[in-house]
Formats: sequence, C-alpha cells, structure tokens
Amino acid sequence: MKIDAEKIRALLAEYRTGFSLPQGLYLDDEVFQADLQAVWQREWLFAAAAVEIPKPGDRITMELGTNSIIILRDAQHQVRAFHNSCRHRGSRICLTERSHGGMLVCPYHQWSYALDGSLRGARQMPKDFDKSSHGLVPVHATEVCGLIYVCLADTPPDIETFRQQITPYVGPHVAGPMKVAAQQTIIEEGNWKLVIENNRECYHCIGNHPELLISLVDFPVPNTPSAAAEFETMLARKTGHWDRLGLPYRAVNGGRGVRCIRLPFHEGTVSFTMDGGPAVKKLLAGFTDPDLGSVRMYHAPNNWNHFVADHTVHFRVLPLSAGRTEVRTTWLVHAEAEEGVDYDVKRLTEVWEVTNDQDRTLVQNNHLGIASDVYRPGPYAPSEAPLADFCDWYTERMTGFWGAPAGRMPQAAE
Amino acid sequence: MKIDAEKIRALLAEYRTGFSLPQGLYLDDEVFQADLQAVWQREWLFAAAAVEIPKPGDRITMELGTNSIIILRDAQHQVRAFHNSCRHRGSRICLTERSHGGMLVCPYHQWSYALDGSLRGARQMPKDFDKSSHGLVPVHATEVCGLIYVCLADTPPDIETFRQQITPYVGPHVAGPMKVAAQQTIIEEGNWKLVIENNRECYHCIGNHPELLISLVDFPVPNTPSAAAEFETMLARKTGHWDRLGLPYRAVNGGRGVRCIRLPFHEGTVSFTMDGGPAVKKLLAGFTDPDLGSVRMYHAPNNWNHFVADHTVHFRVLPLSAGRTEVRTTWLVHAEAEEGVDYDVKRLTEVWEVTNDQDRTLVQNNHLGIASDVYRPGPYAPSEAPLADFCDWYTERMTGFWGAPAGRMPQAAE
Amino acid sequence: MKIDAEKIRALLAEYRTGFSLPQGLYLDDEVFQADLQAVWQREWLFAAAAVEIPKPGDRITMELGTNSIIILRDAQHQVRAFHNSCRHRGSRICLTERSHGGMLVCPYHQWSYALDGSLRGARQMPKDFDKSSHGLVPVHATEVCGLIYVCLADTPPDIETFRQQITPYVGPHVAGPMKVAAQQTIIEEGNWKLVIENNRECYHCIGNHPELLISLVDFPVPNTPSAAAEFETMLARKTGHWDRLGLPYRAVNGGRGVRCIRLPFHEGTVSFTMDGGPAVKKLLAGFTDPDLGSVRMYHAPNNWNHFVADHTVHFRVLPLSAGRTEVRTTWLVHAEAEEGVDYDVKRLTEVWEVTNDQDRTLVQNNHLGIASDVYRPGPYAPSEAPLADFCDWYTERMTGFWGAPAGRMPQAAE
Repeated sequence: MKIDAEKIRALLAEYRTGFSLPQGLYLDDEVFQADLQAVWQREWLFAAAAVEIPKPGDRITMELGTNSIIILRDAQHQVRAFHNSCRHRGSRICLTERSHGGMLVCPYHQWSYALDGSLRGARQMPKDFDKSSHGLVPVHATEVCGLIYVCLADTPPDIETFRQQITPYVGPHVAGPMKVAAQQTIIEEGNWKLVIENNRECYHCIGNHPELLISLVDFPVPNTPSAAAEFETMLARKTGHWDRLGLPYRAVNGGRGVRCIRLPFHEGTVSFTMDGGPAVKKLLAGFTDPDLGSVRMYHAPNNWNHFVADHTVHFRVLPLSAGRTEVRTTWLVHAEAEEGVDYDVKRLTEVWEVTNDQDRTLVQNNHLGIASDVYRPGPYAPSEAPLADFCDWYTERMTGFWGAPAGRMPQAAE
Repeated sequence: MKIDAEKIRALLAEYRTGFSLPQGLYLDDEVFQADLQAVWQREWLFAAAAVEIPKPGDRITMELGTNSIIILRDAQHQVRAFHNSCRHRGSRICLTERSHGGMLVCPYHQWSYALDGSLRGARQMPKDFDKSSHGLVPVHATEVCGLIYVCLADTPPDIETFRQQITPYVGPHVAGPMKVAAQQTIIEEGNWKLVIENNRECYHCIGNHPELLISLVDFPVPNTPSAAAEFETMLARKTGHWDRLGLPYRAVNGGRGVRCIRLPFHEGTVSFTMDGGPAVKKLLAGFTDPDLGSVRMYHAPNNWNHFVADHTVHFRVLPLSAGRTEVRTTWLVHAEAEEGVDYDVKRLTEVWEVTNDQDRTLVQNNHLGIASDVYRPGPYAPSEAPLADFCDWYTERMTGFWGAPAGRMPQAAE
Repeated sequence: MKIDAEKIRALLAEYRTGFSLPQGLYLDDEVFQADLQAVWQREWLFAAAAVEIPKPGDRITMELGTNSIIILRDAQHQVRAFHNSCRHRGSRICLTERSHGGMLVCPYHQWSYALDGSLRGARQMPKDFDKSSHGLVPVHATEVCGLIYVCLADTPPDIETFRQQITPYVGPHVAGPMKVAAQQTIIEEGNWKLVIENNRECYHCIGNHPELLISLVDFPVPNTPSAAAEFETMLARKTGHWDRLGLPYRAVNGGRGVRCIRLPFHEGTVSFTMDGGPAVKKLLAGFTDPDLGSVRMYHAPNNWNHFVADHTVHFRVLPLSAGRTEVRTTWLVHAEAEEGVDYDVKRLTEVWEVTNDQDRTLVQNNHLGIASDVYRPGPYAPSEAPLADFCDWYTERMTGFWGAPAGRMPQAAE
C-alpha cells in the first residue's frame, strides 16, 4: 500500500497532548501501514521469554504485519533472529510457531541454512551459484533480563539504557532458573494503540476489574487527601522492608516509552490470585519473602510485565490490522516448581485471564465508538497522564518518520 | 475514505430515467460511502416502532455505517436520539440493542448522562472540567403515526408534509394500543438500492411469490383491457365500503419519495396469511370489519409498511456495505391480543417470512449479475415505473450533494 | 477498480528472466485486476471437459472475477457460451453450476432466451420494445480434443495452431466415448501464478510428493551423467514401442504458452495409482496396451492435463483474488467403464488428491513468504526453466496490454 505522507502529517497536526488521538490515527488502514513502518519496524519489540527457546536449535516464529520472524538459539546459545523467507523463491521456512532443528530447511526445495543464517545446501543449483550472497536476512535480537526483544530496523535504537535501568528491578526476580507455566493468546477487535492506552490507566479498573483489584492497588492519582495519606502510609510500610532486602522501588525515569517501578499489593495480599494469596509455593530465585509487591515494567510499543515474588507475567501486543490486535500473556515460574504440587495453573492464571477478557471488551467498544462521525478527541483524566505520555511517544515517532506537520515545529525528542 | 466527487458525478451523468442505474452506483465502495453522506445521513430514516420503547428509560440502538444511534424515551415520554459515543474517549455506551435505565452510563469509566443527553457524572475529572460542553451529540427524532424516524443531518428536511399526508390513511389503524408480536432480521447480499427496487415492483411477483399473491393483488399496470376492467370493478366494490367507513384510499401525491394508498386484497381474503383469512382475532383500534384492504405506505430511502385491519407490518432497510443490506420486518398487533388465543405467530408471519426469503435470493442474484463486465442499464417495464421514481429520487439527492454532472443541468427538485 | 498503468509498468520493469517475479506482481490487488484484463479476459481458458455437457440444453457456469459465464450445448450439438446476466436488469440467469433446459429463463422476471442467446420472451414490455437488441452477450467457445476452451476477448488469439499441434498426441486418447468419473475442487491460498509455477517444475517433487513419484519420473534435468544415461535408456525402450503404435512423443514447439510431450512412467508402472498399476480395466479408445506413458499437455494460463492409456486428468485454474486460487481436477474414463467393476474412484483419484493437497500447502507458504519485506526475486534452478518460460509469457502479455516499461524495449513476441 502506497502511503500518503501528507495525510499522515495532517492527522498528526490535529493531535493535542492531553487528549485522545484523532480518529484517523486509530482507524485508518493507511495509518496502520504507517504505524508498521514508523514504529513497529523501527523499535525494539518484545518477542518471547528466553526460556521459550532454552536449547540450541529451539526456534519460534513471530508474525508482524506480513513479515514472519524466526527467533532461535544457536549452537553458541546465543539468540538470533531471521526473516522467515527462503532466498530461492521466497517460501516460508518454519511453518509452525515452535520447532527445533540443527538446520533450517526450506520445505519447498530443501535449501538448507545453518543456525547463523548462512546457506549451506542448494541442490541442483549451478556450480557458479554464489551461496554466500543467499543467506537468510538477519533481524536484530537481544536478551534483557530473560526477555527477548527484536528490532527490524537496519540500525536499531539504543537498548542499553533500558537494560541498565530495569536490571536492578527485574534482575533479582529472574536470577534463578525459570520455565513457562502457561500462555494465553487472545485477539482484541481494536487498534493496537487502544490496547496500550487501556493498559496505561487504571481509571477503568474500579468499574471493570473486581478480580484484579483483589490485590492490585488502584491508586495512581489519589482522589482525596485522606486516600493519598493512606497510600503513602502503605508505601512507607513496604519501602522500609524493600530497603532492607536491597530491592529498588522508585520509579525509573525511562522517558515516555519506558516505565519501571515496584508497587505494593493491598495489605494482606501478595500475588495475582483470587484470594490474594501466593500462586506458587516455590518462590523465584532465592526469595524467601512472598511479599515483594510487583515490579511493573513497561516498554513501548508492545510490552508490559509484572514481576512478583512467586511468578512473572509478560504481555506481548502485536498489531494485526487497524482494528485487530493480538495480545499474548505468558506466565513464568521457578523451573523446579512442580505443577499440581507447587502451583495450580488455573489459580496462577485466572485473575489475568478474566482481566484480559474484560479489557478485550472495553477495547472493542472503544474502537467501535471512535468510528462514530461525531467522535472528537476527548480529555484524559489526571489519572490518565500515562496515556498522554504514550500518545506523545507515538506521535513523536510518527513525526520523526513521516515528517512534521506543516506550520508546526517538531516536538523535542524526549 | 476520501470520495472522488468527480467520479460520482461521472456515474450520475450516465443515468437515464427509465433504465436501471449504471453499474458503479450499485457496486462501488466509494459510491456506497457517497450514498451514506448524500442520502443516509441527510434523510429521515425509519428506526423502530414507537411501541418498541414504550416506557421512559427504554432504549434501542441502530447501526448506520460506522455510526451507532441510541433511541430512547425520556422522562417526559418523548422520543430522543443520540450518537452512541462517550465524550471522554469515544467508547460505545449502550452495548446491546435493547436496554433500559434512568441514566446512560459509559461502561469504560462510568461517565453518566441523563436521558436528555447532558453529562451529569465524570468522576476524577478536574474541578474546572466543563461538563456542559460534553453532552451526548443529539440526533433528530420524531414519531409519525407510531413510527420513529431519525435524521442525522444538522438541518433535517421537512417531515411535516409526510405526517399530514399519511395520517388520514395510517392513523385509524394505529389509533389503539399496540405491541410487537414478532420481528425478523435478515441480511441480503445486495446493494440497498436493489432491495428498494425489488420492493417497488410486483413484476417479479407472479414468478416468485405464490404465498404473497394469495391475498395481494398484483395489478399495478393491467396488461389487458379485460384485466383492467376486472380490477376497476373490484376497486369500486371496496371503495364504496371504505367511503362509508370514512377511510381514505386514493393515492397520495407525496412526490417520488413517498407513496400511500389503500388497495383491496383478492376477493375473499383479508390479510397476509396462507389462506387469506385473518391473522389476528382482535382487530386493531376499534375496527369491527376485518376487510379493510391494506394501506401501503412507503418512505424513501428505507421504509415500507402494510396497515391491515388486524395487524401492521413494517420494513426497515439499513445498508451494511455496497453489497450487503439488513432488512428488518416488525409485526404489530393490538396490545390486548393474546398470543395463542387471538393470534399465532407463525400464521401471522409466515407469508412475509417466505416472501422476504424469496426477495433475498432475487436481490443477491441481481447484484451478482450486475457485477458482470457486460452489464448495461436495462429498460424498466411499464409496471416498474416506481423504480424510475426511486432512481430519480436517488440521483437527485446525489446530484444535490455531490454536484451536477458537467454539461448537464441539475434536475428540478420534485 | 481503477488501475494505475504506470505502477504496473514499473513492476514489469523489475522483472528479470530467470528469476521469480517482483513481489507486487504476486501480491498486489491492483495487479490482480490488471492480470484479469491482460491475461484472463484475453486468452483462451480451459473451462470444462466436453463430456460435462453431453446433451443439447446441458449447461454449466464458470466464474471468472465478477463475470459468470454460461457454457451450453445448443440444439445443433455445438458448444456456445454467454455472459450470465439478463439484459433486463442484469440478474444472473443460471443460478447453479449445472443445469439443463431448452430455454434460458431469468428467474427474476422470466425474460426467456433461446440456446443461441436470442431474447424470445419479455412479458409486459411495450410493443415497440426491440427484442433483437437484447440478446445475451456471447463469449467465444471451442472444443479441442474433448476440452472446452472459452475466450472473453472480442477478438480471440489464434487457437488453431494449438489444436493442430496437440491433436496427434491427445487425439488417440480421447477418440472413444468418455465420461466424468470424478471431480475435485480445492482452494489454494496463493496467487494463481504461484499455482502455475508450482506445476511447471518437479524440483519440489522429491521432497514433497512420494505418492506421485511412484509412477511419475522426476527427470527434467538429470543431475548426474549416470542418471541422464539411465533416463535416455528408459526413453529409448519406450519410444520404439510408441513408434510401432504410431503415437507421437517428441516435445511440441508450442511456444512459451503450450507444451505437449509424451513421457514414460517408471519401469513397471503404467498409471497414477498408489502401486503404479492400472486405474481402470477398460482402456480408453481402442487401446489394448496399458503402458503408453502419459501425454502431458499444458496450455497457459490455466490448464494442464495427463492423458494415460486408461484415463485422463484435467486441471483447471481460476483466480479468485490476489491471494486465492481455485483448482479443479477432473478425471475422465471410458464411457462404458463401470464403477466398482472396471474402476474404483478412490484408486483412480487418490494420487492426485494427495498431490494436490501437498501443492496447496506449498503454494500457500510460498505466497506467505513472498509477502515478507525482505523478499527479492530469487534465481530459478536449471530444472525450473519452464517457470522462466511462464514468467516470460506472462510479462509479455502484461507488457502488450499495459505498455512497455519506460526506457526498455518491449520483448519480441515468442
């Protein structure tokens, strides 16, 4: 699809910080393609937990627009990624989401690639055929605290600052051996930016997420002085404890695209369960205290996570079209926790499964309502300030790629 | 979608009265959007029977393109309509087609609107937030003889002439208390204009609608002098009777967009049933004579109706895409008629259900055939004169909105 | 859809003989429409076996883009074809794929056409209505060796050379009475050109088609001198036999769009069955020898066939969209072969059914992989030379219709 950059710029010109985005930025098919180019093919994207490909030769695929990416662990135990398209006539090579093998063999004519992407076998080709110029096209990949991020850009943006900032928070939770306990993939019938916006505020929680609020404290912007005081008291009670354990908690200044903070659960609750009690008996790493609150880490454009004492949970957002988005939730536990003994999958997953389903409905109805001819960007509430951050982050990237709207100065990079 | 007005005008220039429309006016996606703007968002549309929302707080939604409209009865028993999109971040407010409540509460963040559309509650918003400028966006709505019509235009066209013209015909049938006995919604795989054209002629009846023709007289343009004479005799026999009852029958001159007339059924039949006998024992209003023929009332672009002595039946057409149209049929009976005693739903509905299904197939095959590269507008038969009226009405509205084709004078408004 | 000819020409300019096509020629919706115009509405297309409409009044329909074509046998036993769109208001006339009747009667208003397409009945039309100018729009149709080809162009290309070239090869196999033993229609989720490319090479056979290779010799370009010698020996053993029977075998020089050749099966096998044995006891025509190899006949853009001693099998490709293609396989046997006695349908069809299913998967993954942003046309292997022929044939037709790319001489016609 040819993209009309002038139209993109005109839509960006309508945006005002503090208000939801102009209609076209949510709904337009051309904007969706523009998003893919300006955001999804340039930023670092969360792809999978590292423990999803523990052994050399393990591989998974991830679909992004019409691109399919193979992510694998090579013989040296390094994570690598490649475009899933044979250099002969273009066929997909890995046809299933998970597979394993010492070589990547195209099923069409059996061209064979090593785990470093180099073409090793191409039967029947002439003797002068140059294998060295027909390797798989690489994609940047890196592991950060057990999470695999990939970037389709030729020159990826910096990820080291992010790594340094989150490691003190996340590192202690993922220091020991882990495994996938459960994974859930859902489709939300709404634009990916609405999925992110929905995640960035808890203004909607009290009316929609009773299960989540059993343990999660919904206090982003306390409404009353008395509530604020109560929250500060709760925080203070925990922070002394965390200080003693050497666990950081103050919010990281990661710019608009990164957030990392440790927050307490409601008094008397320690994990995302229906009664607030622990989900897993065997705690992560060397933890002995189940009450560590949750480290909430967010990385734009497609990832948020909770790191609790007894498990971690990771969300991956992938855009399917202007009006469809895939959301995958992955729960990790200690590698030696035994299912049925140390944890029960239903107990571990049910709070987020029901919350995801509630959010799915909210996003769908938000998307449908925005399609109204009378939709106009509405004002964010004070507790929705992180949405303004996200929209600023998004429009900056779009402006950086598609150009600043005429008659308007480009915003300073964060 | 950006609409190429020049293309619309070029298609309109191809139209000749007396022939079916040029291919693009039926099939083109851009024309479909142009139809929405020039016709569906400017004309009065039949939405529902008034008895579908009998009590204050009752509400229904109607989908028109990407717009969703809430139609409700307010505390003063007046019908009102609003766009179904919250002024906060745009979410749909009413999520089901039928609901009830004293307030309209958005499910996302619980912004709350009174039944007059004014915003009453917006929790967590700053003190200087101006609620008065964030009410629901209103849509024009009115009741005409128990039928609710809405209009999305800022300034709707006149509807009072229509009201005055049809009330003497329809009014006596809907003078008493009524209720919904049945409702059927079907999807026809064809353009909405083909659905209307199919309704405006009975040239196709003899070959397709044996059940309908049990009672309905298919005599729009008698083919032979003897048939014409027979029809006049039948008419004369009934009109004396109707004159005595004070029921008007002569065709209303409502212009190309309105038709209202009383016509007799076949001798010995009185209603739309498989044997032509009554469908409901308890007659409407204060009627004592079951043999009143049927008042046929049509209002472009989306509504036709039959008012019989024992029931009424209402058709609502809504365009879904260039090639898909929703048709809803609603049967009303006396409010005190008892199901199973005074009427049987199957007997009441089966003639139109089977007729609708036959028409659904005809419209689908008409649409498919028009997609042929060799399709050229064909000549209407004399008995299809009402289709020429409809196409004139349609092209006038399109010309009025999109401009007259170059080198051609705009047609005078009817 | 309006087609941007400049864009088509730019894509054609990227094509290099010996490499797969540029991405847009496989995937783009506009190119798909351009293909319909430049190839599908100008070339002779295989429609059906003649024995599918054996008797006068028998008719079938074939869908090509938004066109529906009626193919029938008239009273003089000639095959004729017409556009399936009534000249009144455009309705489809034949609603099912197979039907029979002495007249073609439109189901909408019963306009009636004779088997020569002339309008005979149009009830209720005025006396001055000119029936003679409202006949069905004809489509060119011809029978070649029992196969019906149609052409939607006003002036079709020459088909007589093709007829003369293939008749000596195919004619002996179809000289006797035949009937349809089985038919299978599948949808492949890939561009039609990938379906053809997949058919034009057997480079993929060894890795994907074990059942087909039971009898079919996969020797298009022998890899080693010893294999080449073995193949020549096998050929020589058969050709003497065929010479004695007067059956030609050397490859026809039919240009890039036609191929016809007789090739032997593996030693000890005679037909496409799971054990290589005969599929039908009663041989075609007057054959007494079951070991005649297979005549492989290909006619661009949509037809390939195998003519064996005991049956024939015909493949028809029809494009549904840029990414969807219908493939129909039809098996014919001697008209007097008795099912259950002389042949078993499962035994007759299972090799090609499983092969078709394997190809369906290959084509789908080829199409998906080409959608990658990093896809670049890849080099054909020597054994894929027929694909270069096909791509040359295709791009020549596109260039002939849409114009040569700027700065490049048009290629000479083959």
